Amino acid sequence: MAVTRLGPSTYQFENIRILAAAAVGGPKEGEGPLGAYFDSIWPSELKDHASFEVAERHLLLEAQDLAVKKAAVPWESIDMVMSGDLLDQLASTNFAGREHQRPLVGLFAACAVFTEALGLGAMAIASGGPRNVLAAAASHHMAAERQFRFPIELGYQRTPTAAWTATAAGACLVSGSDAVAGEGGVSVESVTFGRVVDWGSKDPNDMGTAMAPAAYDTICRHFEDTGRSIEDYDQIYTGDLGVFGVRLLSALAQKDGKHWDERLDDCGRALYAIDKQDVHNGGSGAGCSASVFSGFIYNRLVKKDLQRVLLVATGALFSPTTYQQGESIPSIAHAVSVRRL
Amino acid sequence: MAVTRLGPSTYQFENIRILAAAAVGGPKEGEGPLGAYFDSIWPSELKDHASFEVAERHLLLEAQDLAVKKAAVPWESIDMVMSGDLLDQLASTNFAGREHQRPLVGLFAACAVFTEALGLGAMAIASGGPRNVLAAAASHHMAAERQFRFPIELGYQRTPTAAWTATAAGACLVSGSDAVAGEGGVSVESVTFGRVVDWGSKDPNDMGTAMAPAAYDTICRHFEDTGRSIEDYDQIYTGDLGVFGVRLLSALAQKDGKHWDERLDDCGRALYAIDKQDVHNGGSGAGCSASVFSGFIYNRLVKKDLQRVLLVATGALFSPTTYQQGESIPSIAHAVSVRRL
Repeated sequence: MAVTRLGPSTYQFENIRILAAAAVGGPKEGEGPLGAYFDSIWPSELKDHASFEVAERHLLLEAQDLAVKKAAVPWESIDMVMSGDLLDQLASTNFAGREHQRPLVGLFAACAVFTEALGLGAMAIASGGPRNVLAAAASHHMAAERQFRFPIELGYQRTPTAAWTATAAGACLVSGSDAVAGEGGVSVESVTFGRVVDWGSKDPNDMGTAMAPAAYDTICRHFEDTGRSIEDYDQIYTGDLGVFGVRLLSALAQKDGKHWDERLDDCGRALYAIDKQDVHNGGSGAGCSASVFSGFIYNRLVKKDLQRVLLVATGALFSPTTYQQGESIPSIAHAVSVRRL
Repeated sequence: MAVTRLGPSTYQFENIRILAAAAVGGPKEGEGPLGAYFDSIWPSELKDHASFEVAERHLLLEAQDLAVKKAAVPWESIDMVMSGDLLDQLASTNFAGREHQRPLVGLFAACAVFTEALGLGAMAIASGGPRNVLAAAASHHMAAERQFRFPIELGYQRTPTAAWTATAAGACLVSGSDAVAGEGGVSVESVTFGRVVDWGSKDPNDMGTAMAPAAYDTICRHFEDTGRSIEDYDQIYTGDLGVFGVRLLSALAQKDGKHWDERLDDCGRALYAIDKQDVHNGGSGAGCSASVFSGFIYNRLVKKDLQRVLLVATGALFSPTTYQQGESIPSIAHAVSVRRL
């Protein structure tokens, strides 16, 4: 195991593997085109929980627990849980931590937090310190809507560019150990940590437009640091740019003479049947890229449908307070390169 | 450079140094007993900024910038900023990131975030990846009060156990390089990452009582993993347990036959003149332990007043929502051992 600095933002790892991955989703996510890739689909948004916020932390816990079970390791072998969510003060991550009782490293990067966790987790393992790191993220549609916008009970009208926060969680068990049995041979090759990009977008109902420049910045820096190009990847999956955001990202690339369309896809666009499920721009939320990767993409890698993927989770770093104070929406994207061994 | 896993929660580093540290505080912090240790004291809580939230991010930026300047390295050499604050969606960290434009790793552990950043930063450096990591945290009294409790303009009465969120920021530049000039020879020896501890405390106006068991848990695990005892440290500084919390921590130790009083102190208790400054339990906030360490403690280490210190930042992991939903206050503490070389 070792870490190599490939450039100002990118670190390459050796022998870091994902031992297991698990995805849990709500009913709408289950009805979507990726429904079959989830390990568990909830029958309702609440299940038996007292509130949407309590539901979200149990969604996260279930994904974490499933990943540990699938790797067939004891919870006690998890040296570190790196996790994030969207709720104020990281409530889901922290209250889930109260249950699992493992050393907890709380992370926040809005919807970009899953790749922050996966990349940081790989770096921690590669340092020779922790043996197993659980990287996870979650979001809940109802909890996010009432925190960031309005309670859904208001029945307010959503704009065409509005994203649908996914009720979903994803977790990956990252390890450097070859000795432990795992379900698939997927390695974490490298991470590119993003910087904050803000082109002045102010509409919280159009986060795809706000985040696309951050995704473009991180992807370009990843290519620069690694000497790779899009041809080196079977697919680049952005986090939750959605229909509008991917179009903008593609246009940004085209302006620089790069034609990315064919290999570009987006977790938020893939999660739902855009035309039929009334999700407008597509899925979003910290659980969106986390669950689409831990369910769909990871399984495609295991099945050798894909050989190498760059996952670029994207985050809109605004809060209701910064929005109300007239601020624009700073964004960030962290990219993780994964490969079928 | 290397990382050694000393136990389930503790990692030891070799040749990881703090190249420079900087602390910035508000007027009340400047009038306190540690005022002279701050690099910069603001003349007012707002300075020239439009809101308390905007002020907080500039407090953070100033501490980050001062640490970089004091280390006499260019900002471009900072490979990673690891930072946290208390505001919803980590607004200060993220909006500061928009200014400094370095790769950003956002962290949240409430008021325990500074040692999470310092420990994780040391681990990242020791992995052989990033060269310089800036670990930082901030809080602002007015911004925190109106987010977590009530706007201070209401003039509500504070309970005797209530803490005073510090208007303060601290930043440390962590590096593995011996070649770069630094102001002091202080090394980061090890980190113990905490788990979530919740003894059922529900009063957001008494966070010291909620957090003391978490501090006790982490300190005990640190001693267990390292084979050390309190005698190995000149001083243990908890983050912001305050008067009541330190008393409880001391009682918890005493119950187990350990007499810690003499070597136990608290950043929140040290930051203000408890009797004269009307702060009740003492200081709190992510910027409390960050600034007390980066100003006072770091300087005492540099001046050889102290040889070895365990900094145990403590965090109350509640949110206004979890409080309103009747939840108790889960807490966490991350410990970092530092030593004068």
